Amino acid sequence: MSSDASPAPAKTPVTLREVAASAGVSVATASKALNGQGRMTAETRARIRETAQRLGFRPNSLAQSLLRRRSFTVGLLTNDTYGRFSLPLMSGVSDALVDAGVSVFLCNVEDDTRLAQLHVEAMLDKRVDGIIATGKRIDRHLPVDLANLRIPVIYAFTQPDPGAIAFVSDDAGGARLAVEHFCRLGKKRIAHVSGPSGFAVVHARAQAYRDVLIERGLPVIEPLLGAWSEAWGHEAVGKLFGAKAGREGAPDAVFCGNDQIARGVIDALRERGIGVPDDVGVIGFDNWEIVAEATRPPLSSVDMNLAALGREAGLALLSLVGGKPAEPGIRKLPCRLVVRQSCGRPPGG
Amino acid sequence: MSSDASPAPAKTPVTLREVAASAGVSVATASKALNGQGRMTAETRARIRETAQRLGFRPNSLAQSLLRRRSFTVGLLTNDTYGRFSLPLMSGVSDALVDAGVSVFLCNVEDDTRLAQLHVEAMLDKRVDGIIATGKRIDRHLPVDLANLRIPVIYAFTQPDPGAIAFVSDDAGGARLAVEHFCRLGKKRIAHVSGPSGFAVVHARAQAYRDVLIERGLPVIEPLLGAWSEAWGHEAVGKLFGAKAGREGAPDAVFCGNDQIARGVIDALRERGIGVPDDVGVIGFDNWEIVAEATRPPLSSVDMNLAALGREAGLALLSLVGGKPAEPGIRKLPCRLVVRQSCGRPPGG
Repeated sequence: MSSDASPAPAKTPVTLREVAASAGVSVATASKALNGQGRMTAETRARIRETAQRLGFRPNSLAQSLLRRRSFTVGLLTNDTYGRFSLPLMSGVSDALVDAGVSVFLCNVEDDTRLAQLHVEAMLDKRVDGIIATGKRIDRHLPVDLANLRIPVIYAFTQPDPGAIAFVSDDAGGARLAVEHFCRLGKKRIAHVSGPSGFAVVHARAQAYRDVLIERGLPVIEPLLGAWSEAWGHEAVGKLFGAKAGREGAPDAVFCGNDQIARGVIDALRERGIGVPDDVGVIGFDNWEIVAEATRPPLSSVDMNLAALGREAGLALLSLVGGKPAEPGIRKLPCRLVVRQSCGRPPGG
Repeated sequence: MSSDASPAPAKTPVTLREVAASAGVSVATASKALNGQGRMTAETRARIRETAQRLGFRPNSLAQSLLRRRSFTVGLLTNDTYGRFSLPLMSGVSDALVDAGVSVFLCNVEDDTRLAQLHVEAMLDKRVDGIIATGKRIDRHLPVDLANLRIPVIYAFTQPDPGAIAFVSDDAGGARLAVEHFCRLGKKRIAHVSGPSGFAVVHARAQAYRDVLIERGLPVIEPLLGAWSEAWGHEAVGKLFGAKAGREGAPDAVFCGNDQIARGVIDALRERGIGVPDDVGVIGFDNWEIVAEATRPPLSSVDMNLAALGREAGLALLSLVGGKPAEPGIRKLPCRLVVRQSCGRPPGG
């Protein structure tokens, strides 16, 4: 706020030498005073500390890092350009690390191998203590090989290398939450509309959908697979609620593979005069709040708890950096169902 | 991909000593070989370099930074939790810096002063060469005082301190692009629906809207200010196209303050049987692709060119870090209009 906030060229940081000169003591005495060592009067120590504070002196963490061989930084690599998945995950990582004094480099490598290699090289040059690799889908590698780095790597929400430690959301468990919720609401004909068949999560969620219906003795409607888009949600409504289907055989609930499909499904149902949630309940996946809350009615959705996932990944990395070994393998963390209005009310509720 | 990608605890980096031992030379010789100095046979030099490469030795950039008093890192502070504005901006910053070997710390400080202070302290401890401050609106400060730091600070898409260097989008210019485009399409009654009156950009855009209409001799409809939401877009259509208005006095174009409002306007018009773009053209602001492309029809929108803005901010910071002075002040960078289908076709086009 001060008018002194001038955009002057870079000043060099205050040195210990300047602190010492200003306080009228030797550099050695200044160093000891600030490190709480050496013999001197309490007044001298207090005066040196006050001088250092006034001048804005900071003990040089680069020099300290050199001694400890740790930089107290970790790299977060992602190819999720929109940040829908990476930003909540990063907030969890930062949350886990901030109290340990560790900062995070976020590098967006897009799908560009050269750029990814460049960023990894830069991270290694800066001697990051470890790397967390994350992405936009859990069945694809980032466009760079992170095996055989001499620092620990944790994978979160991206395809890990064999033998690595990875954290992913429990997609099958998340799908179960949605379908079981419909069952509890008394829905009898539950459909599933999801994304492209090339995605592993599409099959994991569809299988969980089938499993729950079979367990409950309810009819399984063959899942409709398409795109991760509103337009596909519209189109799927045409298939499920078309002229041939008639209202008799039509679903009374639709579990969607993401929130954009669910948004398209709800808009298309409204345009056909079918009420949500009274005629048909709808649940999405991702709990992308900015979409879920703008949907009419607001969309119930499965949340992958990505901040919690990021937090676990951050703590695991800290532990490895600290020298504690950990079992390799993929840890699946639970999802949760966020109930808004689109799924319907309990019978008599 | 190798099964050797074990999640072993942190290994210490390869030292110059290990390289020297493995190559069978002294540490001093190894150092000279890798720095391209000293006298030795080409074979010896090549052998030492090959050894260093095989062992994965990296010259210690921390030590180099200490000598040069530069860390080749900059911090990017933001309070834009969803990353809608910060991520494109950051990709521009990274783009400007990557060739200079500079990496970026992204820190999301939310609206939490304590967290912001913690992150700034961490950046200073790590001796970042400079800071770029960015946010989610250009008329609010981040929740931390960045004046009087001893390193350069550049503001981008957030309220700067007086006397600082800042980059913002030219909101009035962006609004002009939209309204002038409607004029060229022959629209005669152009309305404006925007966000809350507490935002400076709302007034800048509304004023530009008025200015263009007055210049063209077209009627000014008092701008409707509300929320940055789809729901407000719906509500505004009720006001503009309500029973009282009649189709005679109703607008033939609506310029919206953001894409979510525009999405609500288009959905509400469709539900009233009013065709977009044939009856009414609609243009949004932000060019948030994931919304603009899902709108039916796809939404034309003003793009603030945030990646270009980030790139300019990154280059300006590099220049300050390199010791070149720069004039303080606010630089406004131009927007561009991305034409999709919602705004309409030229007459006879």
